[in-house]
Amino acid sequence: MRGLYVGRFQPFHRGHLEVVQSILAGTPEIEVLLAIGSAEQAFTWENPFTAGERYEMIDRALRDAKLARTVIVPVPDIARHALWVRYLEELLPPFQQVYTHNPLTHLLFKRAGYPVENPPLFDRVLHEGSRIREMISRGQDIQRLVPPTVDSYLKEIGAAERLRLLRPPRPSPPTHRQPTGD
Amino acid sequence: MRGLYVGRFQPFHRGHLEVVQSILAGTPEIEVLLAIGSAEQAFTWENPFTAGERYEMIDRALRDAKLARTVIVPVPDIARHALWVRYLEELLPPFQQVYTHNPLTHLLFKRAGYPVENPPLFDRVLHEGSRIREMISRGQDIQRLVPPTVDSYLKEIGAAERLRLLRPPRPSPPTHRQPTGD
Amino acid sequence: MRGLYVGRFQPFHRGHLEVVQSILAGTPEIEVLLAIGSAEQAFTWENPFTAGERYEMIDRALRDAKLARTVIVPVPDIARHALWVRYLEELLPPFQQVYTHNPLTHLLFKRAGYPVENPPLFDRVLHEGSRIREMISRGQDIQRLVPPTVDSYLKEIGAAERLRLLRPPRPSPPTHRQPTGD
Amino acid sequence: MRGLYVGRFQPFHRGHLEVVQSILAGTPEIEVLLAIGSAEQAFTWENPFTAGERYEMIDRALRDAKLARTVIVPVPDIARHALWVRYLEELLPPFQQVYTHNPLTHLLFKRAGYPVENPPLFDRVLHEGSRIREMISRGQDIQRLVPPTVDSYLKEIGAAERLRLLRPPRPSPPTHRQPTGD
Amino acid sequence: MRGLYVGRFQPFHRGHLEVVQSILAGTPEIEVLLAIGSAEQAFTWENPFTAGERYEMIDRALRDAKLARTVIVPVPDIARHALWVRYLEELLPPFQQVYTHNPLTHLLFKRAGYPVENPPLFDRVLHEGSRIREMISRGQDIQRLVPPTVDSYLKEIGAAERLRLLRPPRPSPPTHRQPTGD
Amino acid sequence: MRGLYVGRFQPFHRGHLEVVQSILAGTPEIEVLLAIGSAEQAFTWENPFTAGERYEMIDRALRDAKLARTVIVPVPDIARHALWVRYLEELLPPFQQVYTHNPLTHLLFKRAGYPVENPPLFDRVLHEGSRIREMISRGQDIQRLVPPTVDSYLKEIGAAERLRLLRPPRPSPPTHRQPTGD
Repeated sequence: MRGLYVGRFQPFHRGHLEVVQSILAGTPEIEVLLAIGSAEQAFTWENPFTAGERYEMIDRALRDAKLARTVIVPVPDIARHALWVRYLEELLPPFQQVYTHNPLTHLLFKRAGYPVENPPLFDRVLHEGSRIREMISRGQDIQRLVPPTVDSYLKEIGAAERLRLLRPPRPSPPTHRQPTGD
Repeated sequence: MRGLYVGRFQPFHRGHLEVVQSILAGTPEIEVLLAIGSAEQAFTWENPFTAGERYEMIDRALRDAKLARTVIVPVPDIARHALWVRYLEELLPPFQQVYTHNPLTHLLFKRAGYPVENPPLFDRVLHEGSRIREMISRGQDIQRLVPPTVDSYLKEIGAAERLRLLRPPRPSPPTHRQPTGD
Repeated sequence: MRGLYVGRFQPFHRGHLEVVQSILAGTPEIEVLLAIGSAEQAFTWENPFTAGERYEMIDRALRDAKLARTVIVPVPDIARHALWVRYLEELLPPFQQVYTHNPLTHLLFKRAGYPVENPPLFDRVLHEGSRIREMISRGQDIQRLVPPTVDSYLKEIGAAERLRLLRPPRPSPPTHRQPTGD
Repeated sequence: MRGLYVGRFQPFHRGHLEVVQSILAGTPEIEVLLAIGSAEQAFTWENPFTAGERYEMIDRALRDAKLARTVIVPVPDIARHALWVRYLEELLPPFQQVYTHNPLTHLLFKRAGYPVENPPLFDRVLHEGSRIREMISRGQDIQRLVPPTVDSYLKEIGAAERLRLLRPPRPSPPTHRQPTGD
Repeated sequence: MRGLYVGRFQPFHRGHLEVVQSILAGTPEIEVLLAIGSAEQAFTWENPFTAGERYEMIDRALRDAKLARTVIVPVPDIARHALWVRYLEELLPPFQQVYTHNPLTHLLFKRAGYPVENPPLFDRVLHEGSRIREMISRGQDIQRLVPPTVDSYLKEIGAAERLRLLRPPRPSPPTHRQPTGD
Repeated sequence: MRGLYVGRFQPFHRGHLEVVQSILAGTPEIEVLLAIGSAEQAFTWENPFTAGERYEMIDRALRDAKLARTVIVPVPDIARHALWVRYLEELLPPFQQVYTHNPLTHLLFKRAGYPVENPPLFDRVLHEGSRIREMISRGQDIQRLVPPTVDSYLKEIGAAERLRLLRPPRPSPPTHRQPTGD
């Protein structure tokens, strides 16, 4: 049995890792399929890291945490939300269960007949992607918030400098919900 | 003679219906071509309903109001405003007149040499699409604002729940004008 | 109840018209939804006429044949066959039945759970689109093959000259099947 | 160290499996990244199977052959060959070596400075994808040509019927080279 | 030797012209390649003028200023920032030097190994594109801010009326950085 | 006054150069705008050279022939022929005259109201692009067919090796006409 967990992972943080651990712990035979959403996006404030960089940081974190039974797939966006579930069904190997905190993802998969589960939250406020990006861009320490391999990888690729350049002049609240979530 | 009336119809409301009635009443032989703009968009706050759902709600409202001499065509967006009029000319059967309240649509069709008319407004403030979506998402009664068949169709497809999920955390003013209008 | 009939209608010929008549005759309450496939294509040998021109020729032929309970919708291609049925479901008003001679269309709709029917054929060989385009391009008479309103419309838009220019140096057999069919 | 092996895998056959085995045998620490090219294509003669189906058949074959140190990634085409290598660099985790039999892939990666290797061939004639598709479509036995798990998976998804429908009226020679190869 | 100078030039103003003059003055043999970014955009507040109109206004300004050794190329956006430099390398003739004030452009070209220079600024505050568009839309005099040929060309194409229609109801701060800059 | 001359220039040969010379000779004040069609295509048999390489070879040939009053613009394809003329009107600076040997280009511009001229032919058979590509791929001498600067540039970029790799197994006749011509 495969469970699908969709995110943008900008960056992959402890909250994400704990979700994977909790899914694996909760269902003995399950394989977790981590879909990297908005894979074509990079070098923007919302999506600073390329899909390849995100693949690498997830891969290192999962190996370091010794989490087998996981696979990673980059998934470019499709412009049409109404086709999104069908698009994932054709692009990915079969999955039987969906995990998400995102209400739109929840709605779209429910509508298509999938069982959808809300994994426990683990300090969501702390682990919000945009807050972590803000901290990186200001040179603040994020060791508590990301796995150690991600922390060192972000230093390796110069994440602080990249994010400082990409930070918008004034922060704006997100005004649209995306199925790829946070 | 055909007259083109472009809108996004999210949802189709009484203001829209009255525009169609007024065009039909004003020109005996005219056929009204209702173009559903942004047809590829759905499941967003600005465009919650699919083109198919919008087609269905318009179709029911026009039949209920016994308005013959109308046809409906879903029209996906084209990314380039400068090609938009030409794109509609190739996609749609010939039309000789354009009806719109949208200033950009007005500008683009004028520039292409079409007669463009501003149909009377019928309480525009009341009938603004975003205000009606806000009301639906809050579970408020919109019977006064949409045709009865649209009201029941919206209930049928669970519009209130969908809009509640799609509503942005904080409302933001629209900052760009689109030719597909409201 | 609505029945979907997909074609490219390059041009709309007597075979197409007879299919519509036969569907309407066979199911008293049915409305036929004629979807003009490859709507974005024009000025090629396979797709010489714009969607707007095809809409117009179908509209004239249906009016002339006094066939009510029909609606026409131009449908641009979507690059991915695997998403095609879902795409039509979101773009078009609900339909419950599909009519087609095309084996790929048949396969895709069957796979999605739709009842699919093969309407009777009416001299398919005579009415093949590419054969009619060849005849038009050579200035041959096609009166027997298309409805009279289509014949005169094709003269009106200079179809013979257009097709003469678009005819490939050497005819080549079609080597790929498209769901939009002939 | 990662090695990239790009193919369309329509279907995944013994020749492909032997290439993976030979790469793994030849370089102790290497991880093989199997990129499923033309991932957005399906239900055509050249690309009958969805990326998800191809992922599944590769996954089953690799597990059955007990080949660890392999990962699979579906890769949608990018229209521009000149950007293809750069596109793969951003979409995939870092790779240091490329394996291919395709001359265009060879050229593009060489030009970008990668070491490119031609893995040994294993009866290429026997294992050509189009020949295997032809055999499946004619109901012929392909047990000698594909791994046993692929053979049974193809039966499971009705490959013979699908390919029979998709087979072009007359076979045509491929006239363009694609970097995604065979 | 060619130097690349990328901008959106909405409109082309004195600040832009002075940058070109300063590059030409600083490097005797250099040819300046002005790339008109976001060439596919027009009739929006951020990009009111078509690429053709922008080409024409730049061309007139350069001729009037007698600046030889300059060429102009419209460059449509590519959705993926990570491919942007490579895309320009394939679309444009070879260039060896990049000029920009935009920090993202700077980052992307640096990462690709190009020498990137910050030309002197010439009252950047005065010459910001959005401020000039605001002034045009309010009918204010911009003679001090744009070359005389641009001023008259803008009058010729009715820029004031166009911008008045496109001006958003409430101005919003730009929240994302684009490599095409201002 | 500007005259538009559209081609793919794969490669730019003596026939192209003679057309430019003849246009310049025939109309004293004219500026020739050479639009490089299918600019996004490269590394295929029909379009082996990138737009940047084609820009460079044209630029060298025009300088060598001392042909002033010429400008070069790469033009990516637009999928829809019916929008092609409008697309060029928005992308390019204003032009008043079109030069082409291509019948489809002729048809589309005539339909849009442009004066279209057939420049004299100069041994068209000899200068056909596909024949020159064939010769290059076979290592044959093409000095008589291309300007000297193009001949040396093609050697510089390894054209013979590239074309040898891209040559299709069996040559196939072109079966579709494109407005970008030869």
